[in-house]
Amino acid sequence: MGAEHIPQTILQIILILLAAKLLSELALRLGQPPVLGELIAGIVLGGSLLGWIEPNESLLLLAELGVVLLLFEIGLESDLQEFLRVGPSALLVALIGIAGPFAVGYFVSMPFVHDTMVAVFIGATLTATSVGITARALTDMGRLRTPEACIILGAAVIDDVLGLIILAIVGGLVTTGCVEPIKICTTTILAIAFLFGAIVIGNVIAPHILRITRKLRTRGVFTTAAFLFCLILAYIAHELQLAMIVGAFAAGLVLARTEDQVHIQQRIKPIADILIPIFFVTLGLRVDISIFNPFNPDTRSTLLFIAVLSVVAILMKVIAGLGVLRRNVNKLVVGVGMIPRGEVGFIFASVGFASGIISQATYSAIIAIVVVTTFITPPLLKLLFRKADKPADAD
Amino acid sequence: MGAEHIPQTILQIILILLAAKLLSELALRLGQPPVLGELIAGIVLGGSLLGWIEPNESLLLLAELGVVLLLFEIGLESDLQEFLRVGPSALLVALIGIAGPFAVGYFVSMPFVHDTMVAVFIGATLTATSVGITARALTDMGRLRTPEACIILGAAVIDDVLGLIILAIVGGLVTTGCVEPIKICTTTILAIAFLFGAIVIGNVIAPHILRITRKLRTRGVFTTAAFLFCLILAYIAHELQLAMIVGAFAAGLVLARTEDQVHIQQRIKPIADILIPIFFVTLGLRVDISIFNPFNPDTRSTLLFIAVLSVVAILMKVIAGLGVLRRNVNKLVVGVGMIPRGEVGFIFASVGFASGIISQATYSAIIAIVVVTTFITPPLLKLLFRKADKPADAD
Repeated sequence: MGAEHIPQTILQIILILLAAKLLSELALRLGQPPVLGELIAGIVLGGSLLGWIEPNESLLLLAELGVVLLLFEIGLESDLQEFLRVGPSALLVALIGIAGPFAVGYFVSMPFVHDTMVAVFIGATLTATSVGITARALTDMGRLRTPEACIILGAAVIDDVLGLIILAIVGGLVTTGCVEPIKICTTTILAIAFLFGAIVIGNVIAPHILRITRKLRTRGVFTTAAFLFCLILAYIAHELQLAMIVGAFAAGLVLARTEDQVHIQQRIKPIADILIPIFFVTLGLRVDISIFNPFNPDTRSTLLFIAVLSVVAILMKVIAGLGVLRRNVNKLVVGVGMIPRGEVGFIFASVGFASGIISQATYSAIIAIVVVTTFITPPLLKLLFRKADKPADAD
Repeated sequence: MGAEHIPQTILQIILILLAAKLLSELALRLGQPPVLGELIAGIVLGGSLLGWIEPNESLLLLAELGVVLLLFEIGLESDLQEFLRVGPSALLVALIGIAGPFAVGYFVSMPFVHDTMVAVFIGATLTATSVGITARALTDMGRLRTPEACIILGAAVIDDVLGLIILAIVGGLVTTGCVEPIKICTTTILAIAFLFGAIVIGNVIAPHILRITRKLRTRGVFTTAAFLFCLILAYIAHELQLAMIVGAFAAGLVLARTEDQVHIQQRIKPIADILIPIFFVTLGLRVDISIFNPFNPDTRSTLLFIAVLSVVAILMKVIAGLGVLRRNVNKLVVGVGMIPRGEVGFIFASVGFASGIISQATYSAIIAIVVVTTFITPPLLKLLFRKADKPADAD
């Protein structure tokens, strides 16, 4: 039954959690967000340095459950009303944050790749926003209930739906050479219907589920019910080609409005405490730092490409922050919060590489951009909030 | 990186938890221990009936973590002093519970298998005690702090060390045809040294670890520290060829004596709430009920063999209860608590089948005995405690 690797995976979990706690504590003491320490823990344990851990499927499952629970927790702490209030800003931020990186990414790539198709693909890759890093960094700093956080989270959810359309179009062009408008429309409508449906229907049925749960007498029914609600919505989201975290976030938003919100939070927290660091360490594990070696002539031209595209990737998302329509919102924080490409960028890169449209060098370059945008965001956010706090402290 | 099966595994987790909660609640309402419902949930979802779930490695990892946390929790709720007090009884119960099933199992098997080696192997298989089921059933009934529970748990730990010796001897006979006394002695001494070392050294260093943990400021340090302590001891136990659950139990015993015992319990509980049912459902998944079909002439002779050996397996462990030296202890409860062969029996059967010493039919028979002993114990314990309560209620 393939159980022989279990002790090895348990050893990997031990190493991951030890390194994660050690380095996140160090990051915190140095005034950096703990999540940065966890990412570095992954690089240290991974192939580039120690080479102790090659993530297997079991580890990736735990990591996926980690990011699902992270977004579930964030949903649980969020206020649906506030999201609806910032809706227009979030939509505008998402649209600018997709159009900008796509257009500029395309034009900047052309001189490097000399191929329209590849340049389109790279542009598409730069559009994706990965909300995990930002959400975690904001949680670390206790900034989750700010309007900035709401706009970032809202824009990221919209981004995921729009990213679905882009992936369908670009993916269609890449694999069959043509675009299937009916399929794309169906996928998009289903995704949007799911988001509204989950929240509207969820709001109606969640209290009933919890009422039944309260009547059950076996051990841990409350924890199990909340966990199941989260996993079921995450799975449905996945089936509709959305990210699992979008479903988990919707599940959290729904349960946040029930009277058991605090109980659920308390019970989910210990599980999330163990699984979330596994997710961020795993992100670090995939980084191959040799690509950043400036002394290797082979990587030097790739390095220039990475540098240029990283600047585009960062600047164009920061500019998206200008889409914020409300006053008293720090637009720079919103823009910076949209920077990370994280695992969504990895997915785009993998699709392109698997279908043969992009070369190994371009693939590595995209991964490198994902790494740069992922690592730069937590310290930048920390810096921005520190600056924003300064005048307030002086008052 | 093999992440493509993750959504499928998440769907399996959803199904397992839904079925486990549904059937354990039903079992409870029918006056049966909830764990019986979880075992049946596994049979329903597994190959024999619906065939919806074929456990993959990720699922087996979660199951293993589940049983590890179960024994960790049980250690956390236990009293080391009480274990030392019942030590002599536990030792005697363990010895009788090994000698009896081995000898009788051997003699009863001979007319069926006509091969000394195979009969020795079957006898050895009947010696193992799997404490998971009994521990869970006692927890379900709130009987974990009784002297009976202490003797059962203590005897099961001793059984695991003795089982190690038996597996080394029988395994050596099977694979190389000879016994290596030096290797067997080393293995045994290491295992015993680990048990004493973990508890003695653990008692000294655990308060220091917890003191350092209290000074850390990142999220979830307490949960992580306790979880890590448990996993590390479980992993060391495994490396010394003991069962992981023995290490986890020792970790729990050590942390039970610290001032943070209650905090640790509260934080581990939600994680255990999710993982423990996955373990018991997985046990049920492996059951092939077609072997119990009395209308199939092919299985009829095997069925007789299973019936005879099951009676031996059950009776000889019940007799082991007579080894209890203390007064006011229900010897029948102790004996019945030692009945399940659970996953230890599976391991013996797998070793024998893989090395070609036992046939497919004998393998299936051993699995069937494991199933019978596993399923019979929770209702038997429930019945015994109900009987024992009757006069007390009348007083």
